[in-house]
Amino acid sequence: MRVYLDNNATTMVDPDVVREMTPYFGEKFGNPSSLHRFGSETHKGITRAMDQIYAGIGASDSDDVVFTSCATESNNWAIKSAFFDRIKNGDRNHIITTEVEHPATLATCRWLESEFGVKVTYIPVSGDGSISAETVSSFITDKTALVSIMMANNETGVVFPIKEISEIAHKYGALMHTDAVQAIGKLRVNVRDLGIDLLSMSAHKFHGPKGIGALYIREGIKLSPFIHGGGQMGGLRSGTLNVPYIVGMGKAMELAEYHQRFDIKRIETMRNRLEDSLLQISDTFVIGDRKKRVPNTILISIKGVEGEGMLWDLNQAGIGAATGSACASESLEANPILEAIGADQDLAHTAIRLSLSRFTTNEEIDYTIEKFKKAVERLRNISTSYAKVKAQNEAYPHK
Amino acid sequence: MRVYLDNNATTMVDPDVVREMTPYFGEKFGNPSSLHRFGSETHKGITRAMDQIYAGIGASDSDDVVFTSCATESNNWAIKSAFFDRIKNGDRNHIITTEVEHPATLATCRWLESEFGVKVTYIPVSGDGSISAETVSSFITDKTALVSIMMANNETGVVFPIKEISEIAHKYGALMHTDAVQAIGKLRVNVRDLGIDLLSMSAHKFHGPKGIGALYIREGIKLSPFIHGGGQMGGLRSGTLNVPYIVGMGKAMELAEYHQRFDIKRIETMRNRLEDSLLQISDTFVIGDRKKRVPNTILISIKGVEGEGMLWDLNQAGIGAATGSACASESLEANPILEAIGADQDLAHTAIRLSLSRFTTNEEIDYTIEKFKKAVERLRNISTSYAKVKAQNEAYPHK
Repeated sequence: MRVYLDNNATTMVDPDVVREMTPYFGEKFGNPSSLHRFGSETHKGITRAMDQIYAGIGASDSDDVVFTSCATESNNWAIKSAFFDRIKNGDRNHIITTEVEHPATLATCRWLESEFGVKVTYIPVSGDGSISAETVSSFITDKTALVSIMMANNETGVVFPIKEISEIAHKYGALMHTDAVQAIGKLRVNVRDLGIDLLSMSAHKFHGPKGIGALYIREGIKLSPFIHGGGQMGGLRSGTLNVPYIVGMGKAMELAEYHQRFDIKRIETMRNRLEDSLLQISDTFVIGDRKKRVPNTILISIKGVEGEGMLWDLNQAGIGAATGSACASESLEANPILEAIGADQDLAHTAIRLSLSRFTTNEEIDYTIEKFKKAVERLRNISTSYAKVKAQNEAYPHK
Repeated sequence: MRVYLDNNATTMVDPDVVREMTPYFGEKFGNPSSLHRFGSETHKGITRAMDQIYAGIGASDSDDVVFTSCATESNNWAIKSAFFDRIKNGDRNHIITTEVEHPATLATCRWLESEFGVKVTYIPVSGDGSISAETVSSFITDKTALVSIMMANNETGVVFPIKEISEIAHKYGALMHTDAVQAIGKLRVNVRDLGIDLLSMSAHKFHGPKGIGALYIREGIKLSPFIHGGGQMGGLRSGTLNVPYIVGMGKAMELAEYHQRFDIKRIETMRNRLEDSLLQISDTFVIGDRKKRVPNTILISIKGVEGEGMLWDLNQAGIGAATGSACASESLEANPILEAIGADQDLAHTAIRLSLSRFTTNEEIDYTIEKFKKAVERLRNISTSYAKVKAQNEAYPHK
């Protein structure tokens, strides 16, 4: 059996999305900027994709949605251009973000610090993996140019209070950017209701293709381009339009929005059943209040078991899971969110993330529960650190 | 009949390329950074693509090839990072490029001028659309950080003397970057023989998909990343790898290299036949010595006929052509290369670019010759400016 429970890393492209994209490789291969029919026959598909994306995030017609190559590019663009427009060529000098953003945000902020001396505040998360609007309040000043805080955390699935944070940002004249990569398709995202100025998204996290993302730009926000050139996308993002992926991202958004509205309870029920079953294993805990998380994610810590060991055993059983975000997975570092919430080093290496999708089945959940329990048993039997945990538990049974 | 003669704007994706890509949307959809088998089963495809690209451009194993979202990104990266590494944080202050580069290069250079006060020299082209290594020599100094000159011009197809220019650049300790977008698949490109440090390429110009490119980085060249984040591609370009397009670009490169070696004469013969036939029309001329051009391109000026009028008539007949580069086509400006070679305003609007591919057939060429001649006849009959040309010719028949 093959069970894919790493949907926060990437998702399978929906077969309907593949079907929509395919004609644009062959019969409709034109460059949309060309004046002849080979160019213009791509326009309908692009317009429909735009409509699907505007509808999916509740954007107004007067807002901009600009296609990029991925959310990493979107985050780089939003943060670097906020720097060029409002710090280097403006009178502000400060960016607020969190300690638990995606590396695309963190690395960009660190680059602005080292290259241009920008002041960046990295807000910590509390023990349940959440952040509060009050914490943002306590750091923001009238020199803050940008607040960049993700909508839902990729590791834990914990949802951050973006609406409240937007209000605070705007009170101080700062722009509000959110990385919504882990939110689209998992919770209702309405940019206007949430008061967002800039929003990053990535198609491959909602069953679209890898290699395309977008940046939403609220009406009236002037953002310098990040990639200069031929002036495509109204001069905001140059480079020949990736027509098949644009069409695919539009379809993926339409499907994501539909499933988020009518199908998400089913995924949540499976996730909860999986979570409840795994929590029956002794000395395990899940990070983040279930009610404050997106409905597909579990980050579980298994005392005395290295996350990599679990990954290995699960992989042997055909189950794909993660110890943390995929981009960091090759480095075998401690899970950054567990470090951020202050877990000790032993514990920081014991996290496993399971993330479901609309293609996950109940049979797959049953199979995963069985294999997961077996893996924990096997690994704890050979774990010296778990021997210590057990000894402690026996010595202080009420602790 | 549908005839596509705008292959310098974009190309049809080769059906073999589509076939190679397709499994990576569905059955092999994993994130290559993931540790489980869903991730690792993508590695073989990526490695093969890398091999195909290294072979295609003659790169050494110790060089880097980094995938980007397009050549526009590659050009932005090469030029901006040369600035950050060697001008802002170094002791040089000067970039050399040409007046006829792609907008991705020109707009990036202009941004560095306005944002950071970098000195940029834009080398002019001569009347035949070419540049000489001597001209580069006359502008280069030991303060020059980067020479960025394209391998073949997108409008005329004229090939620039990159090997000689590289030698000059290196004599002064400058990096040599070339935008090879219009060269791959049309002439032999060997980065080691040519002495290139940085080379930009774009899959969709050689029958791969739109939305993927690469930057070649010669061994030993340290280039700061342009897109910061999770550290993919050895930290040089962050963002989840676009596996299907990487696989597709590799296959496209393999095919391009094969056809460039064994099939290019066929395309050149068709191009020459088309060119000879069109030059039989009175008061026309083609820019650039045929022997100095890539084998698929014709930029022809038709006195007294607006390029847009020709485009319209050809489009009505099902033929896709261009007045200039696709990204500039919506602005209806004068052809920049005709302006650069000093043609007067009347003439600068009379250019039509025809660019063939390996999918072009002799039947399509016959059809195009017929329709092209008819269009010129029709448009000259209603052209007031051509009436003047004719009157001049009759008054000064030997001129």
